[in-house]
Amino acid sequence: MSTLKKVIWPQVILFGDSITQFAFQANGWGSEISHKLARKCDVVNRGLSGYNTRWAKLVLPRIVPISEAPIAAVTVFFGANDCALEDKNPAQHVPLQEFTENLKDIVKYLLSIGVSNDKIIFITPPPLQEAAWEKECLLKGSSLNRLNSVAGQYAQACVQAAGQSGLDVLDLWTLMQKDGQDFSVYLSDGLHLSDKGNQFVAEHLWTLLERRVTDLPFILPYWGDVDPKCPESSLLCD
Amino acid sequence: MSTLKKVIWPQVILFGDSITQFAFQANGWGSEISHKLARKCDVVNRGLSGYNTRWAKLVLPRIVPISEAPIAAVTVFFGANDCALEDKNPAQHVPLQEFTENLKDIVKYLLSIGVSNDKIIFITPPPLQEAAWEKECLLKGSSLNRLNSVAGQYAQACVQAAGQSGLDVLDLWTLMQKDGQDFSVYLSDGLHLSDKGNQFVAEHLWTLLERRVTDLPFILPYWGDVDPKCPESSLLCD
Repeated sequence: MSTLKKVIWPQVILFGDSITQFAFQANGWGSEISHKLARKCDVVNRGLSGYNTRWAKLVLPRIVPISEAPIAAVTVFFGANDCALEDKNPAQHVPLQEFTENLKDIVKYLLSIGVSNDKIIFITPPPLQEAAWEKECLLKGSSLNRLNSVAGQYAQACVQAAGQSGLDVLDLWTLMQKDGQDFSVYLSDGLHLSDKGNQFVAEHLWTLLERRVTDLPFILPYWGDVDPKCPESSLLCD
Repeated sequence: MSTLKKVIWPQVILFGDSITQFAFQANGWGSEISHKLARKCDVVNRGLSGYNTRWAKLVLPRIVPISEAPIAAVTVFFGANDCALEDKNPAQHVPLQEFTENLKDIVKYLLSIGVSNDKIIFITPPPLQEAAWEKECLLKGSSLNRLNSVAGQYAQACVQAAGQSGLDVLDLWTLMQKDGQDFSVYLSDGLHLSDKGNQFVAEHLWTLLERRVTDLPFILPYWGDVDPKCPESSLLCD
């Protein structure tokens, strides 16, 4: 047994806040990506609800250490907490300039463990539907603690940081509001994704992910290619 | 950075055939379990479409090697291919007696890498809806190559093997037909799971999984518990 060569599944790592942590809910964007990548990659959920980039960059080396499993792609999906208003939500708020620096530090760390920048995809926060999110805030005894226009500034900073680091970016904030469309359908509570929002993220992310995973081999032989008379010959070699 | 202590996600490994490989489809049972276990475990898809236990036990040491990530649970979900009729589908068919032996060999291997038998859950094949599956077979130019009564024999063998090894078992074949209910709603093509079938597996599996994962800690602090003035103190220690 010990001489058998391990089959190592490459990883697609989803690093982000609650919108990533909840990505495996029914019809979630993480599930959809996982399904598409079955027998090619493990899709690893490293979403941390409520976290901003200040906290994310601290924990990243602890949760994405150097590993024998090659990293095929990493999504970096923050901003929804960083953009919280300083006066209403000082615990989660991160100033815009620091947000940009933190994103760059995240990239720097990923490069340091051998993840090349063509494997990193930034995702901006989605637009914020203020009326719906205000209801959530009121339920928790606070007033509206985020604004769509401010989320937009963080999205723009994310797009710029991606450009400066030579990364692809999925600019949800802009795409979901394109041509003045009603983006509320993409959100469940004004901030997190609805079914349609999950589908939107999955589809747009797939267009960016696909070329990064297209050359990955299908892991282990297709069952019809296994020699039924001598399955060892098909299954125990590379 | 190098002195930071890695955070290791425990693993729940889903080992099986196509019904496992497809477990992350929209509303899939794997997605549901993943969602429930976010921030507690990685749910790892080791489903191999078309594989029987003869092939599965050969590749298991290659795809579930000893690892630093503790294994919280393993589901072993085969039989749908093993039970294929010998004369119609000799490539996938595995005799009943050998099926039992293979399941026991799978357990033996898991025990050998330190997975105790209280962490292993067998899942029997679901019932087969012959009319629907016959259509699929005819589309591929063959005649009906599985029978529900034979799937039932494999399910029973799986239940017995679980009992003899002291394992829990989710007997889908029996549960889905309980009280003469119409089990066709649980299947999409007579063999694979429909949305309702995925939900059925997720719910019943969760009742078995829950107690195995209930003591696992929530990974990294809840965001509201992070000290905003000194996040390092919350995030860089255990």
